[in-house]
Parts: sequence; structure tokens; C-alpha cells
Amino acid sequence: MFSAVDVIRTKRDGRELSSAQIDWVIDAYTKGVVADEQMSALAMAIVLNGANDREISDWTAAMIASGERLDLSGVGKPTVDKHSTGGVGDKITLPLAPLVASFGVAVPQLSGRGLGHTGGTLDKLETIPGFGVSFTNAQFVAGLKNPGAVICAAGQELAPADRKLYALRDVTGTVESIPLIASSIMSKKIAEGTDALVLDVKVGSGAFMKSAEQARELASTMVKLGAAHGVRCSALLTNMDTPLGLMVGNAIEVAESLDVLAGGGPADVVELTVALAKEMLTLAGQPDADPAAALADGRAMDTWRKMVTAQGGAPDAPLPTAAESEEVRADADGVVGTLDAYAIGLAAWRLGAGRARQSDPVSAGAGVELLCQEGDHVREGAPIMRLHADDPQRFAAAKEALDGGIEISSQSKPRELILDTIS
Amino acid sequence: MFSAVDVIRTKRDGRELSSAQIDWVIDAYTKGVVADEQMSALAMAIVLNGANDREISDWTAAMIASGERLDLSGVGKPTVDKHSTGGVGDKITLPLAPLVASFGVAVPQLSGRGLGHTGGTLDKLETIPGFGVSFTNAQFVAGLKNPGAVICAAGQELAPADRKLYALRDVTGTVESIPLIASSIMSKKIAEGTDALVLDVKVGSGAFMKSAEQARELASTMVKLGAAHGVRCSALLTNMDTPLGLMVGNAIEVAESLDVLAGGGPADVVELTVALAKEMLTLAGQPDADPAAALADGRAMDTWRKMVTAQGGAPDAPLPTAAESEEVRADADGVVGTLDAYAIGLAAWRLGAGRARQSDPVSAGAGVELLCQEGDHVREGAPIMRLHADDPQRFAAAKEALDGGIEISSQSKPRELILDTIS
Repeated sequence: MFSAVDVIRTKRDGRELSSAQIDWVIDAYTKGVVADEQMSALAMAIVLNGANDREISDWTAAMIASGERLDLSGVGKPTVDKHSTGGVGDKITLPLAPLVASFGVAVPQLSGRGLGHTGGTLDKLETIPGFGVSFTNAQFVAGLKNPGAVICAAGQELAPADRKLYALRDVTGTVESIPLIASSIMSKKIAEGTDALVLDVKVGSGAFMKSAEQARELASTMVKLGAAHGVRCSALLTNMDTPLGLMVGNAIEVAESLDVLAGGGPADVVELTVALAKEMLTLAGQPDADPAAALADGRAMDTWRKMVTAQGGAPDAPLPTAAESEEVRADADGVVGTLDAYAIGLAAWRLGAGRARQSDPVSAGAGVELLCQEGDHVREGAPIMRLHADDPQRFAAAKEALDGGIEISSQSKPRELILDTIS
Repeated sequence: MFSAVDVIRTKRDGRELSSAQIDWVIDAYTKGVVADEQMSALAMAIVLNGANDREISDWTAAMIASGERLDLSGVGKPTVDKHSTGGVGDKITLPLAPLVASFGVAVPQLSGRGLGHTGGTLDKLETIPGFGVSFTNAQFVAGLKNPGAVICAAGQELAPADRKLYALRDVTGTVESIPLIASSIMSKKIAEGTDALVLDVKVGSGAFMKSAEQARELASTMVKLGAAHGVRCSALLTNMDTPLGLMVGNAIEVAESLDVLAGGGPADVVELTVALAKEMLTLAGQPDADPAAALADGRAMDTWRKMVTAQGGAPDAPLPTAAESEEVRADADGVVGTLDAYAIGLAAWRLGAGRARQSDPVSAGAGVELLCQEGDHVREGAPIMRLHADDPQRFAAAKEALDGGIEISSQSKPRELILDTIS
């Protein structure tokens, strides 16, 4: 017999939760026997008192056990997924999934929607006319066989405890906890049935983890969790002080992804796409594969077109655009020193590209188009960004968000994009 | 504009809550705008990160402001109340209130019901046939004028935020926090309108505070809170390792209180009653009053009879008794070394005298009658306790609770009853 108050007190008083306590509390919470106000008190105790590796592993296992764990053995190919902890302009999944699939590896990419200043892969893909993101398990497996990549929403039956807990944490100030973040991400990814997983852990102003130290701890916690549950994992620590690429929004990020798939696109987006593809292909048993070549010769684009078509989308249909646009101009001559990821993510959100709550709609065409990147020389009065919105009244609030986020100075500070690899 | 998540994060991250944040969150919680799961996360953050004197004072003020603050100026006498943090066999309010009132001081005693192993004053008084504990404000003021003491339940309109928060803390493992305990007690007492207040802060196995250090911190926090809100306060730190007196239950504690009012009764109950009366009378401007004399000469008993009658009770009606009783016998010759307050409180609860939830009924006659006190010499086989219950099936569980709580050895350890005075 367990009692919620006893479990809460155990963690509150800095003691270790037993496996049986964790199994019970997650199951009872999923069933509504443990109330929201009890789980939020426990979550706060975990935020403040932490959890050790065994507790995090048990917590993750209990969340997986709250629903079904997919069996992808019928796909007949190695499976490997990628997860990003979320950033600004992070459209990498779009070129990456078909790129990796073009090597005969299956990419089961269960993705999410944007929240706050970070974008969501599903919101971006849904701007492609006809593109669908809801599939049955059988349709999911069929897509992994051919064309080999599926980017869709997780079903309700995958880790329902995590779904419920995630919504609770969002409104109770209990998001910022490495044990809770790691177990949330990994319970969904393990339940999804992938053989291997590459984590893109973002660090910087536009990321949840502001310091490399925190990001490294989160990455190593997740890699250990994967190993404990039979999923081969590695992680890249990557910079999120400035947006990835030039486009921050929904349809405009699809357009930029198409440039990459066509062999072009911004250097940083290409660099990270290729690095993550190398990592995924290595875990899938192809350490010598050359993903850059598959972008250059059109194999990745071919798989993209098949994937879009398989998901009901029209690969050649024009993408939606916003009705209104307005330029932001440089206020001095100089070098672009900072284009702050958080400020630009917030501006895109205010333009209509993001949402405050999971149920809010997003604008397909809205967003921020960068006309320069850090290190570029600009002249006073030259356009440095183009803002896109359906409603011109949104421009003022977006510009306010950008205030202080753009720095033009006499020198640039070169940044490393890929900071570390953890495996 | 405030957001619950911002307020929670402030305390979670170890920062100080502003007065405006505290006012907003208590008001919004009372109105249901801040949800239970948000308040419990905040409460856990306070349990773990604490609160400073200013925050505790603001928190208390906000809880007072959630309801009405009574104005007792119409009583025309100094008013002084006593609050005990709760113990086993603590019937002191029963003789104390009429004793102090017999000196022409008004005692506005808003009391509570028992929970867990600690008893409740209202449960005890309600065993007197006809005794009522629900009054309007006008009836309350009338009782304070004459006979001068009223022992009743707090109205729903006093500190409703505290009522709601107290129930929440009980189920979320957030009871054990000096800022939350102090503000809960003091918000009700200040809202009640008393001029002065004496706190009986219990320390020991049968108390919420297990160490003198914790108890001293709670006492000084409450005394400071009183001063900040214009209520003169002092506190006694008193021992609760062993029950007060010989009776632990409901009607049997009334009977023991009548012994004290008649000039007799156990020495420890008399000592504490007189000490608290001295403290209350000093705060009410009568430092030279002699409460022991008022017990001896029947003045206190006269006021008791008037008070019982004024509250609808029959002072001469026989008290209810339990249908069944069973003796517990000494298992060796020797000196009674320990009669553990927690074990005996738990036994009385299991006999039917206590409740697990606020809505449970209690047995009027059930309880534990001690036939010895610490330091008494006993012979093996001699009766040392008598257990009373309506249902004889309860005796086994009560005896199990007593296991290890009674120690008979070769020597006794004399205890100080009154450990310290804080003002």
C-alpha cells in the first residue's frame, strides 16, 4: 500500500524513491488516483532535490509502461531517430529524415508542435498543402518500409503518463529539471520503438538549456537512459545563441529546407544536417556513408518527395505566404555581432508563427526572414530582416521583441556550431 | 499582470516573493484563478526554499485579507486568546478559558477539531450534552461580554484562503514548513480580532515539532508575526514527549478538566493551565493576578458553568462513556520510564477518539486512561492503562500502537514541562 503523501515526503526530505514507489505513483497518476496537486508537489520536490540515475531510469520505465511500446521489427531495416531539445529556426528534421532514409535506414520521426518561442516540426510540415501527420501504427510501419521516413504526431497511446505530466509541468513551474526533461523525452522515444537515437541538445539564449554544463548533463543523462533501455544513443551539443539558417517561421522554414535538399541552403543548416546524418548512419551501421553527397546528387530530395506524397502532401504545390511584410533596417554601419535567437524566436511567435498554448492555431506564412547572418558587414539603413505576418498590427510587438537582440558593432564573434559529441 | 508560473519560479529559484506577488497569488488562489496544482507546487517550493520574515508577514496579511477581520472593540474588555500547536491529552483550553475569563478578561477561543493522533477541543466539548460550537459574530461578541469566554468553531468567512490552503497542504506533503504553519495559525488568530495571544508550542514525540530548535523557531516566527499585525504575543515551549494528564480522548478529557476546575486534577495539567493563565493575564494587563487561587476557590468553575450554559450545554449532565474497556498491564516490576505521547495518541485514535479525515466522526467515550505517570513504581501484572472503545475489536490495533511506547526500567527520567518562554 502506497500513499501519495508518503511518496512526496520521501523526495521532499531528500531521500531516494524506491522502484515500487515510482511505479505506483506514475500508474496512479495516469489513472487519476494521484491528483494533479499531488503530482505537481512531487515534481517540484524533484526539481529542487533532484533524482539519481536509477530513479530517472525507473521513472522513464514507468512512463513507458503507462502505454504501449511500438514494435518496429516488422520494418525489416535498422531504425534511427533524431530528437532536438528545441531551438529557433531549427528545421533540421525536414531535410534530415529523408536524407538518412535515402541510405536505406528507416527514420521513425515522431515530432511535436511549437510552444512559446521555439517552433514545431509538425506546424512547419502542415503548411505543405495536403500534408497529414496522424497515422495508425500500421500506416507508420508501412511508411518506414517505403519511402523509409515518416514525420508524424505521436499517438495518444504512447507514454500517456508523460503527456499528462508534461501538461502539468507546463503550468506549475516544474519544467526546468534535468531528470524530468530527460525522462519525458526518452520515454516517448523509447516507446516509439526506434533501435537508435541521436540527440541534438541545444545550448544558448534560444534553448531551454542556457549553459553548456547543463546541456552536457542533460545529454549524458539521456544517453545513459537510452542504454538502460536498449536504445543506442549519442548526442551532439549545438549552439542556439543565434537562429539556425535565415528563416524562422513555418512555411518559410519549409522553403529553406527545400533549398538544402536541392543541394544549396545556408551553410549552418547544411553543416548540422550532415553532422546529424553522419551520427545517425553510424548508429545504423553505416559509418562510412556520405550524406553530403546524397544532398548534392538529389537522392535526399527524391526521398523527400516520396515522403511528402506518402503523407498526402503535394510536393510541387506553392507554399502559403503571409499577406504583409515589413523590413527591419540596420541602425549603424558595422559588423553584425549578435542576432539573438531568443529575441528572434519571440518576434516570430508574436508575428503569428508560434503559440502560447497547445490548442492555439499558428499562421503558416508568418515569421522572420534574416537578410544577414552574424559576421556580415552592413551599412546603416540597409534591410537586415524582413518580418512576415497576416496582420500588420503584429509588427510593432515583434520589433519590440527584437529590441536589444540585434547588435551591430565593429567586430564579429565567430561561433562554433557543434560544441561537443557525447556517446 | 502576474502569472502563477512566474510566481512559482521566483520561489523555486530561491528568490524573494514581492508583496504584490504574494497578494496576487493568495487572492487568485482563493478565487480559483490559481489552480490547486499551482499552489501545491508553490507550497513545496516554500517548504524547500523557505521564506523570510517579510514574506511570511505578507503571506499572513494576504490570508487575513481573503476574508473578514473581526472587530472585538465592542466587547469592552481586553481580549486574549491561547493557541496550542497540538498534542496528546492537551485539554488545557477547557479549564484555561473560563479561568482567565473569571478575571474579567475576554477569551475569544476559536478552536479546531482533532486530526490524526492529536485531539481537538471542539470534539471534546461536544461530548457535553447540548454544547454548541457554531455562532454568529453577534453571538460571539455577546458571549465575550458575558460570561467572558467562548470556545467555538471559526466561521467560514475568517481567512478562507487559509482554510483552502490547509486542506491542500494536508494531501500534498507540504504541511511541515515553519513559514506555512506560522502564517496559517496567525492568520486565523489575527482575523479573529484578539488583542493578545499566548502560544503553547509543543515539542516532542507527540508534537508536530520534534526538536526544541524547530519549536523555538516556529514560536519566534509567530511572535514576530503577531507584533507585525498589532497583536501582543508570547509563547511557551512545552514538553509533548508524554501526554498531558491521565486522560486521552474526548469525554474523559472533559472529566479531567472538571477535576482541575474543581481545584484538583493532575499536577502537570494544573501547572500548565496556571502558567498559561499567568501569561495571558499579564498580556491583558494583570501581571499580579493569581490564577491558582481562582481554581482553588471555585471562581473558574463558576465561569465554566456559565460558559457551558451560554453555549447550550448542560453542565451537570452525565458525560458519555464507551461501552467496552480493557486494561493494559505492566510486563515487569520497575519504574515507568516512558509513556510515549505519539504511541498513546495513536492508540486513542485507533480506539475511535480521533479521525483520519476532517469529515470522519469521532467516538465521545473512547480513549486511553493512564493509571500511572512517568516515574511511578509499578509491579509486573499491575494495570497501567485502561483502554475505552465502543467496539472491542479496536483493542488489538490500539495495543499494537502502544508496542514500544511504554518503557518500564530501573530508573525514571524527570522531565521539565515548561521548557522556555519567548516574547
